[in-house]
Amino acid sequence: MSFDTTIERRGTHCVKWDGMESIYGVPAETGISMWVADMDFATAPVVNQAVKAMADHGVYGYFGDESEYRAAIQWWMKERHDWEIDPAHIFTTHGLVNGTAMCVDAFTAPGDGVILFTPVYHAFARVIKAAGRTVVECQMVQENGRYRMDFDKYDTQMTGSEKMIMLCSPHNPGGTVWSRAELEQVAAFAKRHDLVLVSDEIHHDLVMPDHKHTVMANIDGIADRLVMMTATTKTFNIAGSHSGNVIIADPVLREKFAGRMAAFGLSPNSFGLFMATAAYSPEGAAWVDGLNAYLDGNRRLFDEAVNKIPGLKSMPLEATYLAWVDFADTGMTREEFTKRVEQGAGIAANHGPTFGTGGDSFLRFNIATPRARVIEACDRLAEAFKDLQ
Amino acid sequence: MSFDTTIERRGTHCVKWDGMESIYGVPAETGISMWVADMDFATAPVVNQAVKAMADHGVYGYFGDESEYRAAIQWWMKERHDWEIDPAHIFTTHGLVNGTAMCVDAFTAPGDGVILFTPVYHAFARVIKAAGRTVVECQMVQENGRYRMDFDKYDTQMTGSEKMIMLCSPHNPGGTVWSRAELEQVAAFAKRHDLVLVSDEIHHDLVMPDHKHTVMANIDGIADRLVMMTATTKTFNIAGSHSGNVIIADPVLREKFAGRMAAFGLSPNSFGLFMATAAYSPEGAAWVDGLNAYLDGNRRLFDEAVNKIPGLKSMPLEATYLAWVDFADTGMTREEFTKRVEQGAGIAANHGPTFGTGGDSFLRFNIATPRARVIEACDRLAEAFKDLQ
Ligand SMILES: Cc1ncc(COP(=O)(O)O)c(C=O)c1O
Ligand SMILES: Cc1ncc(COP(=O)(O)O)c(C=O)c1O
Repeated sequence: MSFDTTIERRGTHCVKWDGMESIYGVPAETGISMWVADMDFATAPVVNQAVKAMADHGVYGYFGDESEYRAAIQWWMKERHDWEIDPAHIFTTHGLVNGTAMCVDAFTAPGDGVILFTPVYHAFARVIKAAGRTVVECQMVQENGRYRMDFDKYDTQMTGSEKMIMLCSPHNPGGTVWSRAELEQVAAFAKRHDLVLVSDEIHHDLVMPDHKHTVMANIDGIADRLVMMTATTKTFNIAGSHSGNVIIADPVLREKFAGRMAAFGLSPNSFGLFMATAAYSPEGAAWVDGLNAYLDGNRRLFDEAVNKIPGLKSMPLEATYLAWVDFADTGMTREEFTKRVEQGAGIAANHGPTFGTGGDSFLRFNIATPRARVIEACDRLAEAFKDLQ
Repeated sequence: MSFDTTIERRGTHCVKWDGMESIYGVPAETGISMWVADMDFATAPVVNQAVKAMADHGVYGYFGDESEYRAAIQWWMKERHDWEIDPAHIFTTHGLVNGTAMCVDAFTAPGDGVILFTPVYHAFARVIKAAGRTVVECQMVQENGRYRMDFDKYDTQMTGSEKMIMLCSPHNPGGTVWSRAELEQVAAFAKRHDLVLVSDEIHHDLVMPDHKHTVMANIDGIADRLVMMTATTKTFNIAGSHSGNVIIADPVLREKFAGRMAAFGLSPNSFGLFMATAAYSPEGAAWVDGLNAYLDGNRRLFDEAVNKIPGLKSMPLEATYLAWVDFADTGMTREEFTKRVEQGAGIAANHGPTFGTGGDSFLRFNIATPRARVIEACDRLAEAFKDLQ
């Protein structure tokens, strides 16, 4: 079983493939699905084995004693991210969209502003708005093929009603790995404006071999306003388990968050617990190393092919498997280039505007799929835009 | 594989057995665990098969298209409860403690009163309090070996700050199946005091052969203030999947609830979805019929044996597998009879006071375990209280 193996996902209740036609109008039989952020690979064998062991036992009652689970998280963060955590600081939410929502609920009040560096993962804005808070968009700048933050500008934007930042690190979309200097600037900005800083690091294990991620928790002087979010779900392709971790070192923030977790009667499902315990292990780590090498191959191939098409520009991925392609230089309207991708190439990709200001001329392509399919997608794109050649 | 098969649950991260010693001081090796509400039986083969199919596929991505899942719920409610539901009225929460909490959040404000008919399932009071609402205890009366509500008394208790009732139907603990007349009285009370009525029917499939459950939704004139809660988790022993359904026919209540679901970024885990779809099926129904027959045998045996012990009185179970035993007539203090059960008989059972006013002289025994173990427990109880004979 390798990453090259094609697994049929049609007809398996998977939203990525089974929702492609109804959502994007891309035909189910011939289309290539490159939208929602899950992978077309089977999870790591060690994780799958954990599910099989549950099925062999056959009793799915209430889970107790999370110490092994918490120790596995602690081990992983130390081993993979040089980050020391206290197991008592870990909360388990129903995924990180729920984690984000719980932070909004715990650390802000209705009407407060929550800052997003846009374009960014669309669910942030969705839950902030649904909770009656205000999205404050701080638009990023493109520079040398990556995103950069412009804090001088952001400083002038602040009104005093902002209470929280949602940072996506590494960044989705665009795949930017923030440098230590950049993270220090984010931290300084949070302090300057007295903001809680939530660092969503759901993609922090999926980093290209030539880049190095720094966890925000390892930036000095931010611990008293920092909330970390991590998960096994992107890394091991187990998003269906809806499980995530919110890790809070500061006692005041932690107590607030714990109070809201209790008020919402949230306790983790046992599948997420067993799978995470299995995943955060040496076997899991070896599998992720292989995955990252494979994704690195995919992104090189994808970037090279896409950048050959005049007018198309793929932002070089430093992390994640979510390629962010700019169609601005085609001179086409959004409708036109989207139609060519969806109806011409038969590819479902996320629409840029859903990621907020700055995403208008983009589509996001998920390249976590067997390489042959990435090649096929590139060929189709070249064909769909061949009049530009 | 029958209900008589003993499955070793020690060392499987199950809170019922692995938490017995730390929580109740009952020795892990020799104790009998009869507390938390999950069963010592393997789930239905059809449900286990659904998990195996997931493991065989190996990809655990985001779930899409819930129509089969919703249709299964619709089928089950019609087939088993003569209840017609619209699939669009179904929400999926992370279990029904979370469902309760979401109702408290959606339909009440901080400081509001939420009514409980006590003694009742302990997590209700826990989430109500954690959310900063007030628990209003309406104590039930024991009459002819079952619980009865005393609405004349409750009417005088109301202050106008009460906004919601949490009804447990069938009732935990005590296993009371509410008659249609009783449910009509609850509905009339809710109307009289302008309360939202939440009917937690998590136990409604586990009804003894000589009793018939009526779903609250089939009571006339209550639809505009009714929230129904159901789940596969007790019925099929899959509490670890943390999945439950909140079903709301009224459009105003439904919209409020939907808004809060969105604000909390809650979407269901795929294990719960696949397992529920498998469970709510003819195969699942046949398994539940067999289960109920087995539980009926257990409760007859348990009740007979316990009621033989002078001073002990087991409330005849009409539903659920949670036997509610009154030690009042032993004349012993709570400490004394609890010590005899835990340290004398080596049995972990839930303490009555955690269920609120009216529970003081009780312990709750979970009899969903192979019959041989029920017999052993009865023998141990007889021995522990033999000086009363
Ligand atoms: C930055 C980020 N956060 C959170 C999520 C989703 O998290 P979950 O599936 O745990 O709700 C995603 C999914 O793409 C993401 O990219
Ligand atoms: C009446 C009642 N509601 C809810 C629950 C728990 O539901 P869940 O495990 O779905 O949170 C229980 C468990 O015993 C219960 O008895």
